[in-house]
Amino acid sequence: MKPVKTLLSEQDMPKQWYNIQADLPTPLAPPYHPATMQIVTPEQMNVIFPMSLIEQEMSDKRWWEIPDEVLQILALWRPTPLQRAYNLEKALGTPAKIYFKNESVSPAGSHKPNTSVPQAYYNKKEGIKRIATETGAGQWGSAMSLATNMFGIECTVYMVRVSYDQKPYRKSMINTWGAEIFASPSTQTESGRKILAEDPDSPGSLGLAISEAVEDAAGRADTNYALGSVLNHVCMHQTIIGEEALRQFKAIGEKPDVVIGCIGGGSNFAGIAFPFLREKMAGMDVRVLAIEPASCPTVTKGVYAYDYGDMAHMAPIVMMHTLGHTFMPPSIHAGGLRYHGMAPTVSRVVEDGLVEARAITQLECFESGVLFARTEGIIPAPESTHAIRGAVEEALIAKEEGKEKTILFNLSGHGHFDMSSYDAYFAGKLHNYRYPQELVDEALKHLPKVG
Amino acid sequence: MKPVKTLLSEQDMPKQWYNIQADLPTPLAPPYHPATMQIVTPEQMNVIFPMSLIEQEMSDKRWWEIPDEVLQILALWRPTPLQRAYNLEKALGTPAKIYFKNESVSPAGSHKPNTSVPQAYYNKKEGIKRIATETGAGQWGSAMSLATNMFGIECTVYMVRVSYDQKPYRKSMINTWGAEIFASPSTQTESGRKILAEDPDSPGSLGLAISEAVEDAAGRADTNYALGSVLNHVCMHQTIIGEEALRQFKAIGEKPDVVIGCIGGGSNFAGIAFPFLREKMAGMDVRVLAIEPASCPTVTKGVYAYDYGDMAHMAPIVMMHTLGHTFMPPSIHAGGLRYHGMAPTVSRVVEDGLVEARAITQLECFESGVLFARTEGIIPAPESTHAIRGAVEEALIAKEEGKEKTILFNLSGHGHFDMSSYDAYFAGKLHNYRYPQELVDEALKHLPKVG
Repeated sequence: MKPVKTLLSEQDMPKQWYNIQADLPTPLAPPYHPATMQIVTPEQMNVIFPMSLIEQEMSDKRWWEIPDEVLQILALWRPTPLQRAYNLEKALGTPAKIYFKNESVSPAGSHKPNTSVPQAYYNKKEGIKRIATETGAGQWGSAMSLATNMFGIECTVYMVRVSYDQKPYRKSMINTWGAEIFASPSTQTESGRKILAEDPDSPGSLGLAISEAVEDAAGRADTNYALGSVLNHVCMHQTIIGEEALRQFKAIGEKPDVVIGCIGGGSNFAGIAFPFLREKMAGMDVRVLAIEPASCPTVTKGVYAYDYGDMAHMAPIVMMHTLGHTFMPPSIHAGGLRYHGMAPTVSRVVEDGLVEARAITQLECFESGVLFARTEGIIPAPESTHAIRGAVEEALIAKEEGKEKTILFNLSGHGHFDMSSYDAYFAGKLHNYRYPQELVDEALKHLPKVG
Repeated sequence: MKPVKTLLSEQDMPKQWYNIQADLPTPLAPPYHPATMQIVTPEQMNVIFPMSLIEQEMSDKRWWEIPDEVLQILALWRPTPLQRAYNLEKALGTPAKIYFKNESVSPAGSHKPNTSVPQAYYNKKEGIKRIATETGAGQWGSAMSLATNMFGIECTVYMVRVSYDQKPYRKSMINTWGAEIFASPSTQTESGRKILAEDPDSPGSLGLAISEAVEDAAGRADTNYALGSVLNHVCMHQTIIGEEALRQFKAIGEKPDVVIGCIGGGSNFAGIAFPFLREKMAGMDVRVLAIEPASCPTVTKGVYAYDYGDMAHMAPIVMMHTLGHTFMPPSIHAGGLRYHGMAPTVSRVVEDGLVEARAITQLECFESGVLFARTEGIIPAPESTHAIRGAVEEALIAKEEGKEKTILFNLSGHGHFDMSSYDAYFAGKLHNYRYPQELVDEALKHLPKVG
């Protein structure tokens, strides 16, 4: 029997998060306040975030202790397996070894609880009674509901309408964990009502749902906001993925030649990639590859500039890759990858040449996703099929070149709540779409002038 | 940090199945052929089953080697974790320790692939090209599709209509793994057409879906039938669950005082219980408890007698607990527990006083299922909530008595494809129902006369 999974015991679970800000070749540019257009202060951020997370957000301290209470909850499913995809390798006829980090095993079905749990913990500790947040595909909203429930605080989720309609059982899941959920645009907020007045059938966007959640949180003293990606502390919480993977590769005496993740806001990619980037900066021979959807090509077609984090100018202005905050993406099914911007840390490592980015159209992603389901069993989330497709492409290059190569990708989540996307794929209702450059150019006329 | 999960490495995965027929105080009564009314011969069973499974079915050999090809696929998710439910214990305020075996981690989301994989393997080995099978809640149909796909054979699934309608995404899942699926009663078979002619809106039953699948398989030389529960070899394949649990308890130096599983056809219960029953017969002080739904109280209200395994008298007549093969259960949501009969091995150990049975109404089960989701994170399958409820009741008794006690239950699967049941529960649309004794008495007038 060939060994399939490399496990870590709970005792060997990483006890610290890695903050890549400590090692960036070029430091991050500071965020600006969307109203004052001045560099945002910790006190201003404290309106919607707890101080402990703001401290993490703005720090260049390399290692952060993971609180015991957080580890105790993560241990319900972590450490996650590092899994060798023998059957996929065989189906591709590649000499490459393909490994994946299986983040689909969390109760919410993705990597998202890695950060929702500490976010709920720090908010609870600072006396917050309620969290308002948004969700794209539903992965983040589920994860936040799971976490707030564990710490006995309330949660309201604004879910991008197109996903809300495609995935009715995300709502049921979020309700089961005791949270409430609204389709965004909603009538709950000024930002939502404004869009609904213009277009009652608006499919929504992550940028808009963020506006609704931030507005909700800013308006109530007992309520904070929580973001599931993009921010520095969110990316840092996810580094437990890559730290585990490093330990697991060490245990089997191997090392990946290429590390692959999909990018929407950037957090699952940061999670698997940043620890390897640290090793790369210290001399490890490893390529790092970020895959984004061609329908929302933030890094490959956007610009690296200051932009608003949301549609209604409620969130800070940050330096990042952006398609423009007015970007209203087409209703593609990989809902979690439909954000106009990108995590500033991820954008920074791309700019510094440490990371390659590639855009892939969705039919190819679903094709590889179905191949993965039929070979390795697990039905992947549509977002994760982008990482799988990246791994497949790298494996096929290895086959062409007749080279052995070790590939690692992050399986960010399963697709149990995305089956309508698979139905649409099998019914031939999905099409490839490349976001046109002229629409990008138009949107980029509306960038804020700061910095 | 308190240790949550007890893991086993792949190398320590059990390499043999345990056949309880070797140790039964009273041997099983032989099955009869539904047409000849004589004891069924291996040759007759070979029309729909491969010889290697018939051999397992009829043998009293204690240990059976698990083929390497089967272990290799099981290793995609096995061994499964033994998990301590600290948060549930705390919520109940019980001095009891509650452990559960987490079978929800398989790609199909339940324990079912433990037997679908070997069944597909043996059929493939004997030259079979296609499998016809039924599914109640959808767990088995998914598991069989996953397994046939892994071995490159075709699969057709007949799914009980009430579940088919409640759980549309089981169909998508089954399609993703390359199988075809029909709602039962279907127009594909004589058995299905007959029922549709009487009642076009028939919700179906597991007994009827079995008839359809058996008829399909019997009519095609390249096709065999596969059953997801009830049969001896199916229960035997599931014993890997209990064998792992024994090793895991040994690793932490503990032992359960009570072992709990839900029963529909009996296979997940057999899987966790039979290895502990072996130890009990050898002197281990352990209670074993089977929980069934009050709406389908096969063991607690049925009789122990010879009955048909299906509605249309296609499957063998076996000695078991039964509500009568004409039993058409109400549309409760725990679809997988709606079978009129019970695994003959499970019935036998109940009759021999080795196992206690208890019937529970569904609102209590959902209440405990939601409590489990909110404390331990995992949203359980409606079937599994019966086992959870059983564990909760035992934990509350321990609290009343002020006694320490170690409880083990089998979490047979997750509820990701059952969220409509949770919606119905939260909307107050579910009601308790106890199957009336007069309906049982009526159905029992139609038992076959054999033996």
